[in-house]
Order: sequence, then structure tokens, then C-alpha cells
Amino acid sequence: MTAKGDIRLDFERRNRMGLEEAILASGKSVAHLTAILDEAAAHGSRFLFTRLSPAQRSGLPKHHRNALNYEPLSRPAYFGKPDPFTTGPRVPLVAAGTSPVNVVREVTRTLHWYGEPTVEITDVGVAGIWRLLERVEDFRHMPVIIVVAGMDAALPTVIGGLVAGAVIGVPTSVGYGVAAGGHSALHSMLTSCAAGLTVTNIDNGFGAACAAMRILRSVPAA
Amino acid sequence: MTAKGDIRLDFERRNRMGLEEAILASGKSVAHLTAILDEAAAHGSRFLFTRLSPAQRSGLPKHHRNALNYEPLSRPAYFGKPDPFTTGPRVPLVAAGTSPVNVVREVTRTLHWYGEPTVEITDVGVAGIWRLLERVEDFRHMPVIIVVAGMDAALPTVIGGLVAGAVIGVPTSVGYGVAAGGHSALHSMLTSCAAGLTVTNIDNGFGAACAAMRILRSVPAA
Amino acid sequence: MTAKGDIRLDFERRNRMGLEEAILASGKSVAHLTAILDEAAAHGSRFLFTRLSPAQRSGLPKHHRNALNYEPLSRPAYFGKPDPFTTGPRVPLVAAGTSPVNVVREVTRTLHWYGEPTVEITDVGVAGIWRLLERVEDFRHMPVIIVVAGMDAALPTVIGGLVAGAVIGVPTSVGYGVAAGGHSALHSMLTSCAAGLTVTNIDNGFGAACAAMRILRSVPAA
Amino acid sequence: MTAKGDIRLDFERRNRMGLEEAILASGKSVAHLTAILDEAAAHGSRFLFTRLSPAQRSGLPKHHRNALNYEPLSRPAYFGKPDPFTTGPRVPLVAAGTSPVNVVREVTRTLHWYGEPTVEITDVGVAGIWRLLERVEDFRHMPVIIVVAGMDAALPTVIGGLVAGAVIGVPTSVGYGVAAGGHSALHSMLTSCAAGLTVTNIDNGFGAACAAMRILRSVPAA
Amino acid sequence: MTAKGDIRLDFERRNRMGLEEAILASGKSVAHLTAILDEAAAHGSRFLFTRLSPAQRSGLPKHHRNALNYEPLSRPAYFGKPDPFTTGPRVPLVAAGTSPVNVVREVTRTLHWYGEPTVEITDVGVAGIWRLLERVEDFRHMPVIIVVAGMDAALPTVIGGLVAGAVIGVPTSVGYGVAAGGHSALHSMLTSCAAGLTVTNIDNGFGAACAAMRILRSVPAA
Amino acid sequence: MTAKGDIRLDFERRNRMGLEEAILASGKSVAHLTAILDEAAAHGSRFLFTRLSPAQRSGLPKHHRNALNYEPLSRPAYFGKPDPFTTGPRVPLVAAGTSPVNVVREVTRTLHWYGEPTVEITDVGVAGIWRLLERVEDFRHMPVIIVVAGMDAALPTVIGGLVAGAVIGVPTSVGYGVAAGGHSALHSMLTSCAAGLTVTNIDNGFGAACAAMRILRSVPAA
Amino acid sequence: MTAKGDIRLDFERRNRMGLEEAILASGKSVAHLTAILDEAAAHGSRFLFTRLSPAQRSGLPKHHRNALNYEPLSRPAYFGKPDPFTTGPRVPLVAAGTSPVNVVREVTRTLHWYGEPTVEITDVGVAGIWRLLERVEDFRHMPVIIVVAGMDAALPTVIGGLVAGAVIGVPTSVGYGVAAGGHSALHSMLTSCAAGLTVTNIDNGFGAACAAMRILRSVPAA
Amino acid sequence: MTAKGDIRLDFERRNRMGLEEAILASGKSVAHLTAILDEAAAHGSRFLFTRLSPAQRSGLPKHHRNALNYEPLSRPAYFGKPDPFTTGPRVPLVAAGTSPVNVVREVTRTLHWYGEPTVEITDVGVAGIWRLLERVEDFRHMPVIIVVAGMDAALPTVIGGLVAGAVIGVPTSVGYGVAAGGHSALHSMLTSCAAGLTVTNIDNGFGAACAAMRILRSVPAA
Repeated sequence: MTAKGDIRLDFERRNRMGLEEAILASGKSVAHLTAILDEAAAHGSRFLFTRLSPAQRSGLPKHHRNALNYEPLSRPAYFGKPDPFTTGPRVPLVAAGTSPVNVVREVTRTLHWYGEPTVEITDVGVAGIWRLLERVEDFRHMPVIIVVAGMDAALPTVIGGLVAGAVIGVPTSVGYGVAAGGHSALHSMLTSCAAGLTVTNIDNGFGAACAAMRILRSVPAA
Repeated sequence: MTAKGDIRLDFERRNRMGLEEAILASGKSVAHLTAILDEAAAHGSRFLFTRLSPAQRSGLPKHHRNALNYEPLSRPAYFGKPDPFTTGPRVPLVAAGTSPVNVVREVTRTLHWYGEPTVEITDVGVAGIWRLLERVEDFRHMPVIIVVAGMDAALPTVIGGLVAGAVIGVPTSVGYGVAAGGHSALHSMLTSCAAGLTVTNIDNGFGAACAAMRILRSVPAA
Repeated sequence: MTAKGDIRLDFERRNRMGLEEAILASGKSVAHLTAILDEAAAHGSRFLFTRLSPAQRSGLPKHHRNALNYEPLSRPAYFGKPDPFTTGPRVPLVAAGTSPVNVVREVTRTLHWYGEPTVEITDVGVAGIWRLLERVEDFRHMPVIIVVAGMDAALPTVIGGLVAGAVIGVPTSVGYGVAAGGHSALHSMLTSCAAGLTVTNIDNGFGAACAAMRILRSVPAA
Repeated sequence: MTAKGDIRLDFERRNRMGLEEAILASGKSVAHLTAILDEAAAHGSRFLFTRLSPAQRSGLPKHHRNALNYEPLSRPAYFGKPDPFTTGPRVPLVAAGTSPVNVVREVTRTLHWYGEPTVEITDVGVAGIWRLLERVEDFRHMPVIIVVAGMDAALPTVIGGLVAGAVIGVPTSVGYGVAAGGHSALHSMLTSCAAGLTVTNIDNGFGAACAAMRILRSVPAA
Repeated sequence: MTAKGDIRLDFERRNRMGLEEAILASGKSVAHLTAILDEAAAHGSRFLFTRLSPAQRSGLPKHHRNALNYEPLSRPAYFGKPDPFTTGPRVPLVAAGTSPVNVVREVTRTLHWYGEPTVEITDVGVAGIWRLLERVEDFRHMPVIIVVAGMDAALPTVIGGLVAGAVIGVPTSVGYGVAAGGHSALHSMLTSCAAGLTVTNIDNGFGAACAAMRILRSVPAA
Repeated sequence: MTAKGDIRLDFERRNRMGLEEAILASGKSVAHLTAILDEAAAHGSRFLFTRLSPAQRSGLPKHHRNALNYEPLSRPAYFGKPDPFTTGPRVPLVAAGTSPVNVVREVTRTLHWYGEPTVEITDVGVAGIWRLLERVEDFRHMPVIIVVAGMDAALPTVIGGLVAGAVIGVPTSVGYGVAAGGHSALHSMLTSCAAGLTVTNIDNGFGAACAAMRILRSVPAA
Repeated sequence: MTAKGDIRLDFERRNRMGLEEAILASGKSVAHLTAILDEAAAHGSRFLFTRLSPAQRSGLPKHHRNALNYEPLSRPAYFGKPDPFTTGPRVPLVAAGTSPVNVVREVTRTLHWYGEPTVEITDVGVAGIWRLLERVEDFRHMPVIIVVAGMDAALPTVIGGLVAGAVIGVPTSVGYGVAAGGHSALHSMLTSCAAGLTVTNIDNGFGAACAAMRILRSVPAA
Repeated sequence: MTAKGDIRLDFERRNRMGLEEAILASGKSVAHLTAILDEAAAHGSRFLFTRLSPAQRSGLPKHHRNALNYEPLSRPAYFGKPDPFTTGPRVPLVAAGTSPVNVVREVTRTLHWYGEPTVEITDVGVAGIWRLLERVEDFRHMPVIIVVAGMDAALPTVIGGLVAGAVIGVPTSVGYGVAAGGHSALHSMLTSCAAGLTVTNIDNGFGAACAAMRILRSVPAA
């Protein structure tokens, strides 16, 4: 099943959609991942693995393992060079103090892969609202704001009422009791009183970064 | 089953717990409600019905119907006189603009029954955070704040970070999609990042008022 | 509670966020709605009601009722004139054949209120994939695509793989059995294999239109 | 409880239903599994274990362990010889790129046990719809198509609209957030817009293969 | 949205998939349904409406209303003539005594539309197992058995162990408490101990009939 | 918290309710368990631990560990002597082949502790209904039947229709997909078409045995 | 489907199981109910309808309607004479004040049908624990206690700790918020700290009565 | 992300709200925790970590590790000195025998941090109601009662009916089957028949202690 003949990478995707193939590594065998890397190497293509576990990475042949630019906490791996930055910052990442760093970093790493610089504004949970209010001018006029929040996920609602740009919420699975798994944060974001907020799956920092890239294609560089 | 012999009202409850019997009317037959009123009238006792529907009220004998002080939207009915106010306001009721008026009013009517005046601060949703910030000094130092909010229920978290008093959240069942039924608001409040918030059942304005009364018994009059 | 003094409309919102106040009508009393209309009329302000039921509308004073531009199926009501169109179409609305017309129309009516023309592409469910493939060139290069779909909600995934623009999914509550209420469609969209899709609450056509407006502010007119 | 007297294998099942006994190994003690193997060996019977864990297998007496034809990833174990192939391929297995290989392989191994050859068509997720369209002629006219898909599980809907044969969907438990556990994929398949799709339990590749065998009994060999 | 230009009926579907277009009526406006009927009449095409409510039917223009062969309990409507029967019975419908007649009849009406005769075997719930055992010889050797059952849905498991043919379970939404809505029946069928059972959405008699038709295309006439 | 003064064993329980204290061990620290054993030893009392994990047992002081009659799979531990058998068998335990042995054995061990002999009838799943029908005469006239079943849990419904005695269902958490955790089995039993079946919590073999003992106290010895 | 030939009443059930056939009326058409009554009348048999709605009853032919002994609140209908009482009371029914009378009465009516007298002890909720403690001696030694409770359903736990007999809990669907539908009461009963409590489906008073009858068959008359 | 510049501790919180900053440690990296400790040490500030795992603690630099007053079971860590006790006991902690000691201890440790002494009353589950009744006079007149209970969580309802003070329920996640995770206990408390009970998230002993402190600020010392 993981023989080379079965690998069907989509090398035309950048031309068609503007974003190269990215491959969800979780659930794939090391043999399958190796075949993908072989195929991409043969084509001289670059691509992004998401959610590559340290154990999966360790199992790869040494030359592939060394070729990957990997970050173990957030788990995206670059095969090939990321695009260079060609614009000033357009995407602030805002996170409450309780947000897990891995989700925030998955957003950052994905945006950097696609050549988009980022600004991180963390530890601004709404239980201490003045921390957010002190910082809001820094990003009020940016075109896309990504907000990472777990538990009650009140942060995107407050931000959505303060800024004009697109707001993308990433609910996280932190917490215990009814917060466990992230459904409370997801539902809080979906029912936000701030109009025009959109949401990704729980812990899907990669998806939020791609959504931002879809938007930024139509926006002039900063 | 609704014969007089079966009615077991708890006329000693005020002595024991400081709050008279309150009776959940929903699900009870008119015959049962009438027997309760007969019994209380015979004892010269007063009590509170909660969630008495207009249809139930219409079915009561005229002398009982006339004796009830009733409000059809929030549905508590007073049988007997409410306690007089003997203190200045100690319990602000804070509600977002999307909150249903019936829950807010159920809190107010219950507090008034027990002799506690109220202050209502409505339309202060966090998607327009300055509306809340303009008003917060009015209640920052009160001993108990009741916050009624539905959907993402971000309001109690913001308030919990601004005030020192006890904060009681009442999630409401307004909204559609994942908000329907009030579970998103309930879970948002239970997972609030503001420390020391407590919560009642969805739409339970009566319960929040009773919780406030339990606290206020130990607090000097204002 | 609905006395004029309690109405706190946000007439500065357009300056701050670029979108005027929109008010969720469901759950509000006719008295409350009337007070809001009085206040806006006194300020000479315009705004949008969402989810105003025919019964609520019928209860309004005649001069307010007549002043509203209302559509009973999707239920937004314009108080005041919508903004004029100043650009060619930038937002296609794509819907499967099973999608309820009310959600699609809520998107359209909201976009029109904010001066944004729309293109509707309906009856293109993926169970007959060629219907979609015939139409995709019409919208492949637009900056924002709104996709309305219920039940298995496979449509946004297919579209997300074909276009470069931002894709906003609106899950709908159509269907029976495990589709009832729209959670299957919501979860399908959140777990889409197409990278960078974002999602609104179930049946939230208004929210999707606002999200599109947030994006379009940064995009040159077509 | 696991003494020989308690084992009640159903050696007549092939005569009655056309499929020999298959035994779910998970949750059974090694002693119980051994007693089953002893009993079958004594009868000279063959059967299939499903979901036999590597740990369970390691605990078996050596002669039984050696007698089993085992595959550790998908976990079915053959005790005895599989039926020989007597027909050309009639059952394509179609899977999206994100599908876990273990479920696909459980289908294959079960069909092979019953003497049915298979055709695997993988990595054809609908986010890149042309990959599927290129391959569909290969299986458009086969009598039974098994589709393995997780997350949004859009694949069976698209296939169901392209082929005339029976389509059996196997939802998988891959993914995170609202995909975790496989309920989003299950619900997506149950609410498919393609008429006449049927579904098995999450990750139940064995069940899908048996369902195919039930159908193929009435179909002429290819 | 419902103007003729927007109707995209799939008149080629029979050639491609062997089943003509069937249209889910629920959620569609009368104007939309009328446009569909106009379009089909103009093409001289026949098709099936499912879940057409009596209210929707009453709103149709008289000539369309009269042209429909309608059954109000199960709600499919034939526009045009059903296919004639050209085979003896191949699909028994088995139902427990508690099953709602509307689901059973939806199966029957759909099969008849496609020219397939049916055999109904009802009131054979497993709490009186001998009722089923008396009847099982009547259908033991048929190629497809459709089993309609609600609540604990034990019937398909027992049947699955007695017959060799394909077994399609249709869970129903009858019952109260944890049975309400049909999830207990759905989950019971999905976890059936009888190997090779497949399942449709709750109350989806139409889907079960289509699944049977997909199978029967490959099976010789009886 | 686990000092001796805090242990409040209920040595009078047998006089009052007929069953000695049984103590749920899971979640308790070794120090707490030791204090309980010290207290009981000091009183010369006997009692039953349920769900004592092997790890907890290993941590106990040697003299307590040796004093316990322990079974690691089902995990009840006897401290003191079980009651002697004084009647013939009155409680058959019936289990499907997929049932985990630990739950069945927990029932047996608890009944034996209270001096009640048992009869085990296993591997009689309803997917092979004749296996059950062959055995049913053995227990048709017993006063209490305990049925242990997971997944679709069809077994208690069939038995409930065949016997006159009290039927107690114990749903088990075996299985995967929608069976995982045991809710499908629990709901199946609660919605059983067989009248008069009652149910315990998932995997609660101890509870079922106690329920049987409550019944048997009023029943003459066999 | 409702022709006489399809009715398969189980007139032997009393001989086999000791309880005559009882038929769940909800979801059945009036024609079907009439056919059942015709059949029973022709056999001179008696039986019990459960959950016969007033609307269903009104639709029956006059002679059947008059023959039924009906109670509209709890909805069981006797066709034929109930068994005479031949024992003193053995089954107390205990209910909290918030319990809906219809469930309690369904228990009573079903027990009376089978010739079993009852004792009702209502309005003894545990929020006023002394009310229960005053009454407990009245039923402490009875063989079966049925406890009807909704919301937090704490009553059966307290009773289970005070009595030696079998305790059957009937959760009810009263209440709002997280109580709505009865799942909180069901889960509370299933997780009761009182050992040996068993439970029926939500609102299933009929089932609890049948469970009691199964037990009482083995118990000497009082 | 965890560089010193990103740490935004709220050293003014005590002045504003009366409670110093407390920081949820779970999900934070050791580097982040170290930066927080560095920052607090630099300010000479004290604060509380909640849910600091033994593994996280082990990873800290030795001087910080030694500076922490840590309790591994309940996991709060004091950095700095707790406030001294300046009042007699005002907050009883009441827990059923099945409650996990870690939650009770988290309440105690948090109250002690804020200078509030506690009284623990454990092993008073309502299945042995007299144990509670013997102890209730000890705390009937205290201003705040914290009740920790899992599974059916009947304890707070009984206590709520016996005392006049504020009752805060902490549901716990102990138990198996439908108790697993604590939702049964949470829902039981939210639907309590005792008026005026409020609730925290599952296992949130820290939150209950903070809620008590919010109340006690307005209450005279004992």
C-alpha cells in the first residue's frame, strides 16, 4: 500500500491554489512517510508535513531526517526551503495566557513556510481586560487577526468588537472538566456575539494559517 | 394524589434556612396547585411559585388567581406580601444585550420577594467592551454580582476580572445552532478564566437570586 | 427594562469597525424593538435587524413597520437605505441543492445591505460533481467564496481544493436523523480535508456575510 | 469460564450463512483464546480472529502462534487456509489519503480470507477531485465499492454519485478536534446526499468486507 | 433563486447510475417545487419526490398536484409512472411491532417506483422470538433483507445470524427517553454482533430502498 | 484526611440493610485503604473492596495484603470470610460471547461473598440464536437472571421475552466506534422491547449482584 | 399493513411469562389499534395499551372506546378487567415533590392491572430530608420499592441506603436546562452510591411496574 | 514565546480584586514556568501555581523548585508565604466517601494560601444519611459550605436543604460508566432541588476556594 506507485502527491497545487501540498503525518506509517519523501526528492519538490510526531521522525532514513526542518512541540516539518518574507507583518497572533504554545507555534511555523511574517501578542486573556486594551492599537488595522484561545474562549469576541479586519478563531483543547477536548472553546467561538468571526477545528493552527494565506493573496503587501 | 392530605408544605423552612418554601409550578396539575394554595391560605402562610405558566394561572379558582401577584414573562407568582426593602442595593444584575428579559426579570422578582432591592445594568455585551467599562465603577464594590448571558457568555469572565465580589453566572438558552439550549453558555461560564465564578443551571434566574440571598445573610446591610 | 434609557445602540461602530450595528431581534419583546427603532430614528441612524420574525414585525407601530425593508423567509430587516454597490461581484454564494433558501438569502441580504453585490450558484451538490465542475471557472479567482451546505456538507471540501480564495462554510440545519440540527454539517466542515476553510455557526448566514465584509475591506474593488 | 466446556464455536455457520465463524479477539484473555484454538484444532476447523493484539498473540502457545497467519497492523489472524480466489476482482477499495492503512488492510485481509480478490485505489481525497475522476472508470461498473474515509468523509458521497454499484462506507477514527473518534465521518456518511449509501461502525473494515461477501454471493463471478 | 434557470435536474442520472433523480422535498418552497415540476414536465421526464409534506403538496398548482401519485403517511410522490415489476420478490421488509408504519411504507413505495416488488413481514419483534423463527424460512434465501427497527433494534442482529443475504438496517426514531430521536437504535445496529450488517440514517427508508436497488442490479431476476 | 479518625465505616449496615459495607477502592490512596483495613481489623469486621487495582493491592502492608482474598481480573477483594452457600442456585448469569470476563466474574465474586451460588451460561449471543434457545430451559424458572452484554446488547431483550423472573441487565464497555465506553449497550437495554427489564451502570457487575441480593432476601431458598 | 392478518398478538404470553401482552400505542395508526382491539375481542382476550393518546382514543370505534378503562394523564388503557387484589400492599411508590404525576400514576395503573395494590408516598424530596425520614418506617421492610424522581434524582440513593428491599428507580424528564429530557436524572440513578439500585428508561413507569411484578412472582403474598 | 518580555504577570490584581494572580500550570512548558518564576522573584512577588505536575516541578531550576511549597496529590504550589490565619473557621468542606482526596485538598490548600482556615468533614455520603445528620450542627451556621461530590452528587442537595449559608458544589470526575469524567455529578448539582446552590467546573477545587474568598471578603471574621 505504501509502494511508490501509490503515492499521488499534488505538485500542481501551488499553480492551481497558490499553496503547495501539505501532508498530515499523523496516522501514517514510517514506510509511507518515507515513500512520500522519496517521491518529493525525486521531483525536486518541497512540501510541509503537519503533526509529524517525534517518533515518526526518528524512524525516517537519516538523509530524510536531516533534510527536515522540524520543531517538535508544534510538529510541522519543512521539506525544502520556506518562502522568503516579502512584506511587513500583516497577521497578528493573539493568545490568552492559558493557550498552549504548540498551537500558536503551529500557526507561526506555517505562515513562515508560506513567506508571511507574524507578530505574536500573548498572555492577554480577558479576565485582565486592560492587558488586551493596552495592545490593541498594535493590530487594530491589520487585515487578518488569528486568535488562539481555549476554555471559555472569550478573547475573540472582545477582539472582534475592537478591530475591522478578518478574525479567525482557533479553539484549543486545553483545560479539564467541561473544557476537556476543546468543545467549550469551539462552541463559544461559534456563538460569538462579535459579528463576522470564523473558526477552525480545535487545535488547528495549520488551518488558520492557510485561511490567512487565502485571504492575504488578495491583499496588497504591507 | 393531589388531595389535601398529600400536600406537605414546609412552613418551617424560613426558620431553618432563612428562605420560605418556593414551589416549582411547571409540570403540576391545576388541582395540585389549588390544593397547595388552599393549604397555604389555611395556614396564613406566604410562598413563591416559580415558572407558573399563564395557562396554569388561568385554571386556578378566581380567589386564588386574584390573590397572586403574577408577572407572565418571567412567571414567578407571589402568594402573600413580599418582604419590605431594608437595605440599599447590594446586588447588581448585569446582562448582555442578547439576554432574554425573562431570565433577568426572574432574578429581580425573586430578590424583591425576599426584600432585596436590585440594580439592572443591561446591554453591556463584551463585543462592545467600552459599554461595560463605563459602567463597572457602579458595581465594582458590591458583594454579589449576578451576570446573565447566553451564547458565548464572555461577560462573566470580563466582569470576574474587574470586581472583588462574588460573581454568579446564569447561562441562558437564547441562540441557534450550537448555542441552542444554552449548553455553550453554560460550558463557557464553567470554564471561565476568571477565578471564583460560580454558575447555576441554564435559565435559572430563581436559583441565582436564592444563591445571592444565601450570601447576603452574612453581609451587613448597605 | 425596555425604557428608552436602557437602549445603548453603538452609533460609532461604523467608524470603529467599518460595519454599523446589527441587532439580533429574536428573543426581544416588541416593546424593546420599538424602543430601539425610536432611538435610531431620533439619531437619524440606519441599522440592520437579523432574525426579525413576522410576528415581531406585525407588532411594531405602523410607521416603523412601514419603514422597514423586510424579507420574511430569511428575516433581515433594513432600517434605512442599504449602501450602493460600488464594485463588481467579488463574493460567489455556492449552495447544494438541498440547502434551505433562507440561509442563502440571509447572506445575500446582508451583503447587499453593506453595498456588496453577489453571485448565486445553487444546486451544485457533490453527488453530481459535474454540475459543480461546469461552474467553477465562474468563481475560481474571486477573493471570498461562501459555501452553504447541510447534511454531509461535502461541498466546501471540494471547492476548497479547486479555488485559491478564502472559503467560508455555513453549515445548515436541514435534514433528519443524525443531520437534524446541523451538527453533522458543522463537524464535516470543521474537519474538512481542504486546508484553510473556516466556518460559522449553523445557519449563520449573517455571520458569513460579515466575515466576507471584514475580508473585502482590504481587497481592491473588482 | 474459559474451560473447554464453555467454548461454543459455531462450526455450522458456513452451511447456514455462507461465512465461517469469525471471533473478535479484543477483550478476551489468552486462556480463552487458547481454548478456542484448541477446540478448532480438535475439529479440524478454520476460522478468523479479528483485532488480535500483538500482545495477545505473543501470549499464545507456540504451536498456535505459529499456526496463525497474522498481520500486526490490521490485526486479523487466519487459523487455517484462506479460500482460493475463483473470480476476477469485483470489490474496489477506495480510500482518501488521510485514511489509516490499518482499516483498509483489514478489509483486504478479510476479503482474501473469504476468497475474494481486491483492487486498492488510495490517496484519492476529494480536496483534489481530479485524482478521483482519473480513476473512476476503473471501478465504475463493479458490483460493490467499499470506501474508507475519515474526518469530513466526503469521498463516499462523490463516489455514490458516479457509480451504479452498492457503496459501503467505512468511517475511520483518524483526526483530532471534532474528528476525534470518527463520529464526524460516521455522521457525514449517514447523511450523504448520494442515495443508497450504507455504512458500518467506525473502523469496522471487517464488517464492510462481510457485507460485501453477503452481496457477492448473489452476483455471478467476474 | 427558484426561477426556472436555476433548476438543474439530472436527467442523465438513470443512464449513469441506473436510478433517476429523486428530490428531497423537505425545506423547499412551493415555488421551488413548482419550478422543478415544470422543468420535468417540459422534458417529459419522471422523478420521485421524497418527504413531500401534505402542506407542500396542497400548495402546488392543481395540474401538478393531480399528476402526483402521493401517499401522505410515508410522503414519497411519484411524478410519472413507476417501473413495472419484472421479477418475483427479492426484498423482504422485516419490521418489529413497534416500528412506525411510515418508514416501512417509504421503503415499499420507493422499491415499487423502481419496479421491485416487496414482501412485508411485520410484528416480529425479538421479545417474542418465536414469531420471527416461524417466518424466517420465507426469506432466508433472498439476496437483500431490509430490517426496520427502533428502540433497542435487536431485530437485525438476530436476522443477520439467520440469513446469508445482505442485511440493511433502518433505525427508526420511535420511542421516548434515551430512545427519542433514534440514536439508540442507530448505535445498536452499528454495533451489531452479526457480521456484515450495514445501516442507513435514522428513518431513511428511501435510502435503504436505493441501497437495495444498487445491489439488485447485479443479481439475476427471481 | 486519611488519619484513623476520619474513617467512618458502617458496621451496622448488615443489620439495617442486610448487606455489609462494600467500599469502592478506585481513587483512594494506599494510606486511606490501609486505614480502612486497620479499622475493620480492630472491629473484627469483614467487608468487600470493589475495583481494588493490582497496584493498590501491592502497596498495602503485607499482613493486609495476605489477608485479602483477591482476584486481579475482576478486582473485588474479600476481607474476611464470605458467607457459606445455604441454597441451591437461584441466579443464572447469562453472557454473550463478546462480553468481557471481568464483569461476569465481578458478579460471581460478589454473589459468592454474600453466600449465593451462581450458574454461568456464556457464549450465547443472539447472532446465533439457537445457542441461547438450547440453554433457556436451564434457567427459565429462576427468580433473578443477570444478563451481561455489550455492543448492541440484544441478549437481555430476547431473554426478557422468554422468562418470567426478574431480569437485570449489565451493559459492558467492550467494543470500538460507537460501542466504545458502553453507551450503545446501556441505551439498548434501557429501550428494550421486553417489558420489565432493569439496568445498572456500565460494567457494574457489583451493583447487579447487590440488586439480586436485594430481591433474593424475599424469595424462599431453592 | 394493518389488515387483520398482520396482527400477531401473543395470547400465550401470560402462560409463558406470567404477564399478558401489553402494547405500546404511541406511533400506531387508529386503524392498526382498531385491528388489535378486534382481534383481542374475537379471542375474548384482555390486554393493556400503554401511552394511548387522547387523540388516538377518540378515533377508535365507539364500542371499543367505551370498552376501554382509560386514564388520560398517564395514558394506560385496560381492555378487559384488571386482576383482583389478592395480597396486601407490597410495593410502595415514593416520589419527590417535583415528580410529574403522570409517571407515578402509570406505575400505579399498571400494577393494579396485574392485581397488585400500591402505597403512594409523595412529596418527600431530599432537599427536606426529614419528610422522608418520617415516612421511611412505613416501607422499610417491603420487598420492592419504586422511586420516581427527576432532575438531580437524589431520592433513590437516600432510600437505597435505608431499606433492604429491591429499589427500582424511574428517572423523569421534568425540568429545564441540563435536566431537560431526563438524562441528568437517569445518570444520577445509574451512578448512585447506594449499592444494588436498578433503573428503567426515562419516564418508563410501565416498565418499573412490570419489573416489580417479575420480582413479586417469587415473593409470598403479604 | 517564553522569553521574559512575554510574561505579563498581574501584580496589581490583589489591589484590584483582593486575590493575587494564580497561574494554571498545566499545558505550560518548563521554560515558560521558569520565566514566570524569574519575573515574580525579580518583583519580590508571591503567587500560586495550580495543577503543577510533578514532572513540571522536577524540570524547574533547583532554586525555584526548592522555593516552592508543593503538594503532589492536589498539585497547587505556593511561591512565597501564604497569608496568616486571622479568623476562626468559616468554611466547612464536606465530602462523600467516594470523593477523591486531591480535589478536597486543592480546596484546602487554596484557602490556606489566602489565609482562611478550613474544617474538613468527609465520608458523609447520603447512602448512609445518618452520618451526615450527626455532623450537620457543626456547620449549619457557617457562611459558606463547599461540598465535593462525584457520581450521583446527591450530597449538596441534602446539605442545601439543611443549612442557611452559601453552598458551592464541586463535582468530581470519579467513577466509571456514565459517571466517567464527572458530567453526571455536574448535571446533578446544576439540577439540584435545593434552591440557591451554585457550581464550579468538574474537579475545580481551586475555583471553589476562590469563590468562597470572594464571599468571605464581605463577611465579618468569626
